Parts: sequence; C-alpha cells; structure tokens
Amino acid sequence: MTPPRLIYRNGTLRIMDQRLLPDRVAYIPARTAAAVAKATKDMALRGAPLIGCAAAFGFALELRRLRPGTPAALRAAARRTAELLKAARPTAVALFYAADRMLARALEFADAHPRPFGPAEKRRLVSLLEKEARLITAEDARACLDIGRHGARLLPKNCVIMTHCNAGALATMGIGTAVGVITEGRRAGKVKRAYACETRPYLQGARLTVWELMREKVPSELITDNMAAHIIKTCGVNAIVVGADRIAANGDTANKVGTYGLAIIARHHGVPFYVAAPTPTVDMEARSGDAIEIEERSCGEVVVVKGRRIAPRKVRARHPAFDVTPAGLITALITERGVISPVNVRNIGARLA
Amino acid sequence: MTPPRLIYRNGTLRIMDQRLLPDRVAYIPARTAAAVAKATKDMALRGAPLIGCAAAFGFALELRRLRPGTPAALRAAARRTAELLKAARPTAVALFYAADRMLARALEFADAHPRPFGPAEKRRLVSLLEKEARLITAEDARACLDIGRHGARLLPKNCVIMTHCNAGALATMGIGTAVGVITEGRRAGKVKRAYACETRPYLQGARLTVWELMREKVPSELITDNMAAHIIKTCGVNAIVVGADRIAANGDTANKVGTYGLAIIARHHGVPFYVAAPTPTVDMEARSGDAIEIEERSCGEVVVVKGRRIAPRKVRARHPAFDVTPAGLITALITERGVISPVNVRNIGARLA
Repeated sequence: MTPPRLIYRNGTLRIMDQRLLPDRVAYIPARTAAAVAKATKDMALRGAPLIGCAAAFGFALELRRLRPGTPAALRAAARRTAELLKAARPTAVALFYAADRMLARALEFADAHPRPFGPAEKRRLVSLLEKEARLITAEDARACLDIGRHGARLLPKNCVIMTHCNAGALATMGIGTAVGVITEGRRAGKVKRAYACETRPYLQGARLTVWELMREKVPSELITDNMAAHIIKTCGVNAIVVGADRIAANGDTANKVGTYGLAIIARHHGVPFYVAAPTPTVDMEARSGDAIEIEERSCGEVVVVKGRRIAPRKVRARHPAFDVTPAGLITALITERGVISPVNVRNIGARLA
Repeated sequence: MTPPRLIYRNGTLRIMDQRLLPDRVAYIPARTAAAVAKATKDMALRGAPLIGCAAAFGFALELRRLRPGTPAALRAAARRTAELLKAARPTAVALFYAADRMLARALEFADAHPRPFGPAEKRRLVSLLEKEARLITAEDARACLDIGRHGARLLPKNCVIMTHCNAGALATMGIGTAVGVITEGRRAGKVKRAYACETRPYLQGARLTVWELMREKVPSELITDNMAAHIIKTCGVNAIVVGADRIAANGDTANKVGTYGLAIIARHHGVPFYVAAPTPTVDMEARSGDAIEIEERSCGEVVVVKGRRIAPRKVRARHPAFDVTPAGLITALITERGVISPVNVRNIGARLA
C-alpha cells in the first residue's frame, strides 16, 4: 500500500513531500492556504487530483485561521483564498474544481448568515468546510476505484501496458487513475507486465510510478522516455494508459510533457492509447486544447538532476511542463462514470450531462 | 572549435574522455588495442566514426607493441586485434570498417613478406599501419565536410532544426555528421535555431551537442527527449537530422535509442527526417534492420545519473542503447557521396557501387 499523501488533523494538513521519494517518506506541515500553494509550486505536492484535495483542505485551513466575523469578510477571504490556491498550478483543472466547490460552500454560508457571526456560527463554518474537503477526498478515492475497474475491463489478457509520469495513488487520494487501471488489471489477472517511462525532467515515473508498481507487486520495468517506441515495437506492448491534468470539451488532453509524443508513437503502432481521469478533469469551458495554457517551468529543472548539473553553464533550455494530445489520438477516456469512446465533444457532453 | 578527440604520437593514442564533458577536457592515454576497446566500452570514447578512427590507431598501436617476427605471427596478431576492437561496440559498423581495413593492410603485408621480418620490415609494417590509420582519419574529416555541405543544401531558409544524441565533431575527426549539417547550414545563413534532445540515459545531447552548438555560435536550446513532439508542433521545427551507427542495405538505420520515436513524430508532423552518415556506415551485409543486433547496456546507466540514484533500489530497468528506424520514415540519407532519396535498397546500392 502507498502511505497517505495528505493527513488532516487539528488545523494542520501534513503533505507528503514527494520530492523525497523514493528515498524517504516525510511530510510538510501546512497551516495556511499559502503553505499548500507553495508545496504545489515547489512540486512537493503533485498530481492533479491530489492537488485538488489538498487545496480543499487548504481552503478549510485558511478560513479556520482567519475566522471571518461577517458575511462580507467571509466572501472576501474565500475569494482571495480560492484565487491563491488556483494560481499554484494553472494547468490542473481538478484544483480549480476543488477550490471553486469550497468557495461555493463558503459563499452559500455567507448568503445563509447575513448577520455578524457568533462563536457557534464560526465553528459551524469551519466544520462545514472541513466536511466538504473530506467529501471531495472521498469522492476522489471512489472515482479512482471506478476508473480502475472500468479501465481494467478494456485490457486484453496477458496485457503488456505502458504508462507515463505518475497518475498513481501518489497523485490522488485513492488507487490512482492510470496506475489504478494497471493495478486493477493486475488484480483481475490480466496484466503481465508494466513499463514506466521515467518522465524527464522531474522523473515522476522513475521516482514514483515504479515505486508504486513494485509495492503493488506488478512486474514492471523502468525505461527512459525515448525508449518507448523501441519497447512498444519489440516487447508486445498492447495498451498505454496515462492520466490527465486537463481535458478540453472536445477531448484534447493536457498532461505531463511527453504524453503527446507517446500518443503519436502508439497510433503509429496501432496500440490503444487511454486517458484515465475523473470527470472534474474535464474543463467544459476550454473548447479545445488550443484554449489550454501550457505552463513553462524553470529550465533549472532540466539542466540539474538531483543537484548535479548535466549541461554546460549558460545553456539555454526549454521546459514546457505539459503538452496537449489531440482527442483524435486518444482511443478512449476512462472516467469514473464509464468509458468515453470515440473521444469527441458529443460523447463527452453526453457523459457529463 | 572543438578540441581534438584523438592525438596519436610516439606509440600513444590520447583519447578525449567524453564522460567528463562539458565540465572538463581530459585525455586517456592508450598504448594497446585493449585500452582503446576499454575506452569504447566505458563510453569515454563514443561516436561511430570516431570509434572507427580510434580503432585504426589502436590496431597500429597493438602491432607496434607486439612486433610480430613472421607472417604467421602477424596474421594471428592482426586477426586477434581486429576481433578485440570490433567486440567493443557491435552496433558501430564504422568500427568494423576501420578494423577490417587495417586487418587487410596487415594481411597484405604478410602476403608480400613471406619470410621472417628484419628490423627494417618491422618498422615498415608499423609505418604502413600508422599511415593507413591517418588516412582513415583524414577521410572521415573530409566526409564530414562533404556531408555538411550536401545536407545544408537541403535545408530551407530560416530553418529550425532538431537533432538527437551527438553526431557532432565529438563523434568524428571532422565537423561531425548531423551537427556538421547544422553548422554548415548556419554558415550558409539558413539555420535560425537548433534544438538538441538531451538523449537519456547518457545525455550526449545535454553534455556534448549543446556544448558544440554553443561553441559554434548556433542559437540553440536544450530539451528533454519527451518534449520533442510539443516543440516540433509549436516552435516551427522544419527539419530533423541525426547520425547513424549502422545503416542496413535497405536503409533501415540503427542509431542511439530515441531516434525511432523521433522519426515517427517527425512523420506525424510532416517534418523531413534526415540521417547524416558517411558511407562506411552502410552495412551491405545487413539486408534490413532485423539483421542489426541491438546492444543492451547496463541498467545502472538508466537508474544512476551523474552518480546520483534516481529510482528505487531493486528496480528493474531496460537499456537498449540503440533502436532501428525503418527506411520508410527517413526522408533522405545524407552521405559524403551525396543525398540518397527515397531511401531504398536500389538507391543505396547505386550510390555505393
């Protein structure tokens, strides 16, 4: 089993520092929304669904700390807190979903309590927000399980499966999305072997995904990202499954950089390419991938690996952290509400309605 | 200018230790063929054409050291030395070409001198072998220049070009093959920008290619291998050029792992994909890529980067060092004898005849 990623107790959220994995499991204590946002920006906290759950707790933490005394103060604090959390990872729509849901609860509370809050109302607000955060978390865990089961049904017998980045238990509060499909498929006796792409520059595949797969006793092998085409061609890979940071209304999918290239390579070999993600990952306001902003992260993350410089000084490097895979390259979306295929605006709209 | 990769003087070959780049330039002294083979196996010496040149000097060194006294001893020593050198990097056909050419000179000498050798004959043998090694080296430098010029003519104006691994000056005794096309293209005013893929696991792109491009004042950016598809799609890349370790008679090309995936991605975007290599890289005995053995190197090279472990202990990892790009994905072969396109057995045979 994967150790807990978030532990919320007594006004403190302990966030697993995933930068330290697989070497050790340690937690960062967060008592403010700003601390949650910082952990997200610093990549201690990662994985779109997990960031959403952490943001929900971060929202509750912040309002617990601020203890607004009037509806107006609550509205202002809630809006500010939601904005602060959302700015930490603009690509992760699950973060927007969670922050907006918490904001809605806070605004509802303000509407329902037009007069200055007494101690009982202040307690009730915190309790309501904490309950909502726990609900978001429980829904995420449940969604993972459903995604895993729907996905496992798509896999052939003796499946050799490949994944990119980490859409595992570490990225969620449940069994993971893409990795959940692999572990549920293994439990169903269908998965023979899994390949994890290391996922440069941050190496989530090497540090996190193989670590999870080893703990779940899935026979697995680590490869560098550029080996994928050779391995797909020569090792009988017959399914690829990845997660998503944001899915546009037409199915275009933003995910960790490298996903797009892998989808092209899958198509070339006629291997099905699945995106596994909970429905809150779908951003109906983004009509297509063109509307998704790609975050450009520091190039230091490209030229320095585990503290060691790998390129000449003064080198210029790029670091788009995500890329967009067009819906046409995606065989199916695997969601907690079922499998969407072919991936297009009509089928997605019908499933989300 | 790139510092010399090989310096041969007085029975010692000084081999640039490319594992230390870009941090420092240092040389390994080799006095035997075994030392040259070891430098090749250890990756201090790399780049198919350069390995061939080093093997030629290694052959001369070894015969200089052994000083065989009879034609039979010469034949035996020459055959043993050629085998030893060839075993160091089975994928690099330029190595086979150079070793076999040196072997042929040695066997001719044995045939021409049927009686035990006197001191003058022993000197003549060494001098003949050293001269042949220098000729192989000079031919390589000349071939690079011709490849660079032929390749530069293929590039459009304002070309944005991408390369993988290092097929640069560091891989040859000249200006390089793929990188030679870029630098000659730049000299002709055609190259606006170059992207170098870092080339995991050994990071030849990050350590060597950008270093060369920066020294040659080509505006360049480093990317991780898995960014290639996104960069090609969003940054106007309109040519990709790579080197080759071995080209089968039908044009299927073995090169550093990642080349095959990049060729698929290029095809998907309609971007021309060029392989730049001297004609000795063509192995007419390999009918197709299926006949090319892919060397599987230590998985330690995948899980340890610059001495730092990046994956859990006991992880299983794969390390195919090369992959095969089918001729159908290659727009043209750029050789010192001219451009071969479309890439097929007939056109290759005609050019090599």
